[in-house]
Amino acid sequence: MTLFAWPDTQTVKGQPLAQRPIDVICLGRAGVDLYAREDHASFTEVSGFEKFVGGSPANIAAALRKLDVAAGFIGAVSDDGLGRYVSDYLNSIGVDTRGLETIDNGVRTSLAVTEMSADSPEVVIYRNNAADLGLHPRDISAEYIADSKILLISGTALCASPSREATLLAMQYARDHGTLIALDMDYRAYSWESPEAAAVYYHLATRLSDVVIGNQEEFAVLESMGINTSDDASIAEHYLQEPTRLLIIKKGHEGSHVYYPGGDFEKGIFPVIAQKPFGAGDAFAGSLLYGILNDLSLQDSVILGSAAAAINVSRRTCSEAMPTKAELESFLQSHNQHFPTPISGDENAG
Amino acid sequence: MTLFAWPDTQTVKGQPLAQRPIDVICLGRAGVDLYAREDHASFTEVSGFEKFVGGSPANIAAALRKLDVAAGFIGAVSDDGLGRYVSDYLNSIGVDTRGLETIDNGVRTSLAVTEMSADSPEVVIYRNNAADLGLHPRDISAEYIADSKILLISGTALCASPSREATLLAMQYARDHGTLIALDMDYRAYSWESPEAAAVYYHLATRLSDVVIGNQEEFAVLESMGINTSDDASIAEHYLQEPTRLLIIKKGHEGSHVYYPGGDFEKGIFPVIAQKPFGAGDAFAGSLLYGILNDLSLQDSVILGSAAAAINVSRRTCSEAMPTKAELESFLQSHNQHFPTPISGDENAG
Amino acid sequence: MTLFAWPDTQTVKGQPLAQRPIDVICLGRAGVDLYAREDHASFTEVSGFEKFVGGSPANIAAALRKLDVAAGFIGAVSDDGLGRYVSDYLNSIGVDTRGLETIDNGVRTSLAVTEMSADSPEVVIYRNNAADLGLHPRDISAEYIADSKILLISGTALCASPSREATLLAMQYARDHGTLIALDMDYRAYSWESPEAAAVYYHLATRLSDVVIGNQEEFAVLESMGINTSDDASIAEHYLQEPTRLLIIKKGHEGSHVYYPGGDFEKGIFPVIAQKPFGAGDAFAGSLLYGILNDLSLQDSVILGSAAAAINVSRRTCSEAMPTKAELESFLQSHNQHFPTPISGDENAG
Amino acid sequence: MTLFAWPDTQTVKGQPLAQRPIDVICLGRAGVDLYAREDHASFTEVSGFEKFVGGSPANIAAALRKLDVAAGFIGAVSDDGLGRYVSDYLNSIGVDTRGLETIDNGVRTSLAVTEMSADSPEVVIYRNNAADLGLHPRDISAEYIADSKILLISGTALCASPSREATLLAMQYARDHGTLIALDMDYRAYSWESPEAAAVYYHLATRLSDVVIGNQEEFAVLESMGINTSDDASIAEHYLQEPTRLLIIKKGHEGSHVYYPGGDFEKGIFPVIAQKPFGAGDAFAGSLLYGILNDLSLQDSVILGSAAAAINVSRRTCSEAMPTKAELESFLQSHNQHFPTPISGDENAG
Repeated sequence: MTLFAWPDTQTVKGQPLAQRPIDVICLGRAGVDLYAREDHASFTEVSGFEKFVGGSPANIAAALRKLDVAAGFIGAVSDDGLGRYVSDYLNSIGVDTRGLETIDNGVRTSLAVTEMSADSPEVVIYRNNAADLGLHPRDISAEYIADSKILLISGTALCASPSREATLLAMQYARDHGTLIALDMDYRAYSWESPEAAAVYYHLATRLSDVVIGNQEEFAVLESMGINTSDDASIAEHYLQEPTRLLIIKKGHEGSHVYYPGGDFEKGIFPVIAQKPFGAGDAFAGSLLYGILNDLSLQDSVILGSAAAAINVSRRTCSEAMPTKAELESFLQSHNQHFPTPISGDENAG
Repeated sequence: MTLFAWPDTQTVKGQPLAQRPIDVICLGRAGVDLYAREDHASFTEVSGFEKFVGGSPANIAAALRKLDVAAGFIGAVSDDGLGRYVSDYLNSIGVDTRGLETIDNGVRTSLAVTEMSADSPEVVIYRNNAADLGLHPRDISAEYIADSKILLISGTALCASPSREATLLAMQYARDHGTLIALDMDYRAYSWESPEAAAVYYHLATRLSDVVIGNQEEFAVLESMGINTSDDASIAEHYLQEPTRLLIIKKGHEGSHVYYPGGDFEKGIFPVIAQKPFGAGDAFAGSLLYGILNDLSLQDSVILGSAAAAINVSRRTCSEAMPTKAELESFLQSHNQHFPTPISGDENAG
Repeated sequence: MTLFAWPDTQTVKGQPLAQRPIDVICLGRAGVDLYAREDHASFTEVSGFEKFVGGSPANIAAALRKLDVAAGFIGAVSDDGLGRYVSDYLNSIGVDTRGLETIDNGVRTSLAVTEMSADSPEVVIYRNNAADLGLHPRDISAEYIADSKILLISGTALCASPSREATLLAMQYARDHGTLIALDMDYRAYSWESPEAAAVYYHLATRLSDVVIGNQEEFAVLESMGINTSDDASIAEHYLQEPTRLLIIKKGHEGSHVYYPGGDFEKGIFPVIAQKPFGAGDAFAGSLLYGILNDLSLQDSVILGSAAAAINVSRRTCSEAMPTKAELESFLQSHNQHFPTPISGDENAG
Repeated sequence: MTLFAWPDTQTVKGQPLAQRPIDVICLGRAGVDLYAREDHASFTEVSGFEKFVGGSPANIAAALRKLDVAAGFIGAVSDDGLGRYVSDYLNSIGVDTRGLETIDNGVRTSLAVTEMSADSPEVVIYRNNAADLGLHPRDISAEYIADSKILLISGTALCASPSREATLLAMQYARDHGTLIALDMDYRAYSWESPEAAAVYYHLATRLSDVVIGNQEEFAVLESMGINTSDDASIAEHYLQEPTRLLIIKKGHEGSHVYYPGGDFEKGIFPVIAQKPFGAGDAFAGSLLYGILNDLSLQDSVILGSAAAAINVSRRTCSEAMPTKAELESFLQSHNQHFPTPISGDENAG
């Protein structure tokens, strides 16, 4: 039996997971990334920028689509040409955008302008009065969430009202209807009014989530509540509590440490020459969810995620650089591994 | 065995409830009430006002003190003469005010100015940038909450940041340390940014509370989430869920409807000539908690609450008009009842 | 000829001043004063409060009405019982309240709660989201201002938007229609976003005003602009510039120093036993304007103002303690002076 | 004698204009323009953007520098790579940036992302919490303004605090020191809290300005004050008042209508094939100021402005497309005109 035992899961309300039309709804920001045209050049030096869709949950949706996973999106963009671009792009790659609102009250679609280099390029982020944070609880449809197997939450969606309340409401609807919740911590301190407020909402959110993914710096958000997060075991002690059944601690070059109710394991990364430092986490999350949805073992799901991360950072773009299944197969072959197959029975955690 | 089985309750962290030094910590606003000197006169007509301490959780703390219950307070007042008055008053009646913050950044202590009449006197409330809503998660001490048997939350404390986060944090600490949470809905729509936001936080709060008290209008706050609250049974279906073990629907002149895991019962009121429409709910809550703390049966606890409510509204003031045990005894005797005694064994629910 | 030569003044637009139906329109806050019932008692000790209408320009309007001056008001109160009280009171004493708006978006009528003692009683002021600061430029009628001889501005009305813009617009309309502008500095640093912003608007406002009244601390508001206000002469050098033709520096127990284009003079006070420290300035301004309107000499106008100030502070209330003409006559007689008579010809300045 | 008679102007404070080291200080926003790489393509279609410095007063500073005018700048950019780019660029073209502040409290440098086409390309503007609007009165140096002959104000700098107060203060310093003020209306309704507030500040600003430049839509901002702006003569009746001595009504394809105290004249445009609709006004203002500074006649100054506007819109960029003197000469020759020479004596207005 697989970790989440999709076919057998009987939800409180709504139809069984296996019969739901959407695999994953990603909730949070979708914005525009502008990548410097020239490498290793400062903002003063570059001549211009390439244009892509970005934002962690949008990147994950793109990663899922490349793997033919049925993905939906809940978020908000501005009522202007850049908002339309984001919406057009998501539609063009087959993301269901019925949950993507357009807001016309002065908000602006999130914009990240970045230099290009492998280590610490400067990124200037335009998120003052960001459209995605204007997502309102009124915009959240219980029926839409009930149509999905998984709800992927970007923690940044909790950083300000009314997106905060919209996100909490979506999570409540998910719990009511048996939709699994995967929380990508995505903690950016500058977005929050205080570290203490961040701790309160991350604590609430992790207690509503089935899967929690983050890195050590992100998990430390709870320290203001007196929770020790100084090592993996301490993190797991707090974060792997009901209803959370899967905790993934991302450790950069060291790979990841995975905890589940019955045990834990560590996995390394596939070393590649990176073109940029972003994209790895979103690629990882997309392939991990693919693995979970396809009854791959946890170990195999994590390997797939690591391969996707490696492929993404070795390319110059982000949402557009998510690998297809064929590319993953090819990559794994070149590393003397093969694309994993579904497990059967109780062999999951290992 | 009594409802909450104090002596036997084994908490996750901290000492057993029976050994805790504080019985009830009330969390929320404490402010100033100004009552018109003359009855049945408009604001234009009255010559002046009498001064009292008010605010629902402060009134409940006052009610508890009259019954010799060890009460503490978590809240905030302004750094001025009216803030000091509130703090001085709570100290003078024996409330532990270690959790009462003083804020000096332009906030003002909540102020309610009211006409005097039994039915619908106008009340003008000054709560723009109210001190109590400035309570910050940094002000919340896990140790202090661990020292109390019960944490009484006024729902209004959830209406705005940072009080919202401070309140959620206090509730999380209470759950972590086995402190019982009693939530008085105290829903005032005008305090909230939207009905949907109110629904989100009330839903979260009721899912963290052991006891929930409110009236039908207040429980209807969840209707924007598609939850039916059209009658008592519907309300109970949603609100009496883990961990909530006691739900009290206050019904004005019709008394109250009480739900607990094993059943439900209704109780009428003691009819009196009212001097004013406020104070009844806070007097009720205070005596109810007294009953719970003293192993009275649920039925007896509710009767005691109703008697206290009747006494309070028949007087001209509010916090200062909370009855003593002797006054409750005398009132019950005059209604051919006697002051209830603790139950033993399993006879609680009835 | 008198200082402002009313009958002869030919305005750019509108009718001659002498034919205008309103003598003075006061612009700014009108609120509620709550005076402690007991003297020399702290807020913790007092039992309650007496209720009055207050706010500097409302007090000046009350002072003018006691002297039978035709007074109007431009301002805003909240849509509640306290707002109605303020409006009812102003109407009851004959103030024209066509320019008094009622606002219902959560603002509150300004409220000052005060201890009672002659020296430095504590005053707690409720002005968060104050109704008067919600006055909007849309509320300002050029026709109404054109119907008045004088527009009295309380400088505090400039402290925040949209009252700031409404006030500047009223001043522009006044200049366009030949309505004389009297500016009472009324500078309260805590109301302003920064001292520099205060300096900018006070500088603009004084350059639009015919008469400027303030004390040395208030005039120092311009120091952040590099303007020296260390002594009366320095103050006059800056503040007595076109179109300002009358500058009154109030100096507390030392009386006042008066500057006009042709010279200056000082006047002492009438010593009395004060009941409270407020009200003197507003009583002074009211009688001064009475003098100007009635062709009294500047010296006599200032004497009248000083007498009114002395009478007011010797009483327990403020707006209701403004003296009538008969009371001023009686007071002056008891000080071996008589009520001044209009001047004729060019004898004004001295 | 020329219009402003620089050499003879005797200022109240500071040195004569002719001896001042700076010709023009431009005050207001300097930001980043991102121009679509492909023409006639929507935001969805374009592949990326070219990067330039933009913002009306920054463009005017660039125009002035191309003509070897000594230009300074007062404004603010964000403390990040895009802010540094703007600052670096202005320095690189020789603009004195001592008055350019860097702000690090979450503001962002103004960003305009635009499609490319001659008629109505969509422009998405990121100005939520814009750095330039964070310019504070504390940042304004009286000495710096006293060192310049002209202060060029972009009206948008008045749209929000604290930039509004900083701008008013700069204008007050300019008047105090005899620095001529040129106001480019630059009215963008969406930046303002209300049309009435815009009217109040534009009215104040025009009454402090020597030169006022705008188009008919911009001048209509005063209509909420009851001022008729339905035709050029009505506009002139209001806007050409002391101390304004030059009013230029820009009329798009119809050219411009110029009013000065002694008369008025109209001038047409140089028809060219436009690449984009922006830049013309800023190019015009730059050359006009060059003309004024160099004793050209008003007619010649306007012709120079029109030529610069024509050259700018025929190019693909904006700040970088401002013409040099040589380019203006060449352009005028190709239109059978020659570069104007200074006038002598009283022949200015015509």
